[in-house]
Amino acid sequence: MKIYDWHIAPNPRRLHIYLAEKGLKVELVEVGQPDFTLAPWFKEKYPHAMVPMLELDDVTHIGEAMAIARYFEETQPDPPLMGTTAKEKAVIDMWEKRANEEGMLPASELFRNTHPAFAARGLPGAHEPVPAIEALRDRGRARLARFFRKFDEQLGRQEFVAGSKWSIADATTLCAIDFAGWTDVRIPEDCRNLQRWYKAVDARPSARA
Amino acid sequence: MKIYDWHIAPNPRRLHIYLAEKGLKVELVEVGQPDFTLAPWFKEKYPHAMVPMLELDDVTHIGEAMAIARYFEETQPDPPLMGTTAKEKAVIDMWEKRANEEGMLPASELFRNTHPAFAARGLPGAHEPVPAIEALRDRGRARLARFFRKFDEQLGRQEFVAGSKWSIADATTLCAIDFAGWTDVRIPEDCRNLQRWYKAVDARPSARA
Repeated sequence: MKIYDWHIAPNPRRLHIYLAEKGLKVELVEVGQPDFTLAPWFKEKYPHAMVPMLELDDVTHIGEAMAIARYFEETQPDPPLMGTTAKEKAVIDMWEKRANEEGMLPASELFRNTHPAFAARGLPGAHEPVPAIEALRDRGRARLARFFRKFDEQLGRQEFVAGSKWSIADATTLCAIDFAGWTDVRIPEDCRNLQRWYKAVDARPSARA
Repeated sequence: MKIYDWHIAPNPRRLHIYLAEKGLKVELVEVGQPDFTLAPWFKEKYPHAMVPMLELDDVTHIGEAMAIARYFEETQPDPPLMGTTAKEKAVIDMWEKRANEEGMLPASELFRNTHPAFAARGLPGAHEPVPAIEALRDRGRARLARFFRKFDEQLGRQEFVAGSKWSIADATTLCAIDFAGWTDVRIPEDCRNLQRWYKAVDARPSARA
């Protein structure tokens, strides 16, 4: 099996962090190009045109970072990073989804509708031009401000995003925060719980995977 | 346990369909109001201010429709609607995520940035005003057009969205299509696989749950 990857991109990074915490090594095939596009041969091979993509030995293609993580969680359950009981699994899934929809997607929205290289690529995975929308910059910043506050509150109640142990929800949250940094949006100074958590999670070796 | 619900809303509907296919009945508490807002007491109780929300008997709150479904999938595995093998689980998860991010979210984006009742509520779950963005109408329509084509192609290869059996990915896809209908966006005539699938899935009793 192998993972088609764009190593610097925020979405594949969720999976790198997960695999590192899991202690798994999978062959990576780099398909990102210096001009922020994906290699044409990859888009032809895989019309969804998004990374990461796991290709199994039977040539099944599995896209979506968290669906790929689920595959590994099922085949190699230890250490469990998506919970063990029904309640834990649901709570981790909930916070991972929030980190994605309230952090990753707004960070992506802000970046893609701001950076000149994406003037005609406002959305990932589209083969035709998608013009950037200027009004999404303010909305993206406001969404990220809400995201920081919500996760700061949550991290005032416990050590990690979805409980007392590191979980995959922490991977998505870390990637969302660093992705927001691409447009110079940072954790507000007064979000002290989130700052404390960031320092701890960013110091784990998985953050450099 | 009980589920806080807004019965006509597309996001809770994913869960209603899932529970019906599962043969489960859970107490529902309606918190939607005729003016398209959530009851103030609910927003106070649950600051994420989104439905559905599952409250367990130990008062744990689990939000996000699919995280709630995961809870029930773990506690009552039969019939399995999220797959049984690692590969099935990952493939279903991938298609559910695509149905959400490429169907539900664009339908929501188009509806919220079009309907006058949402002129200051461009995003769900925000407590402060979020002005509608007119340019998102065209973008939303273009995203939905891509969604229809992609799922039409997929349904040319197999009976259901994620394989030969009905799965939770079908629930999200059905809700996304019907949500698109709220802004009069319909499956294109020439998407015959998707039309065939829609007719079959819409005829299941779960579609009226």
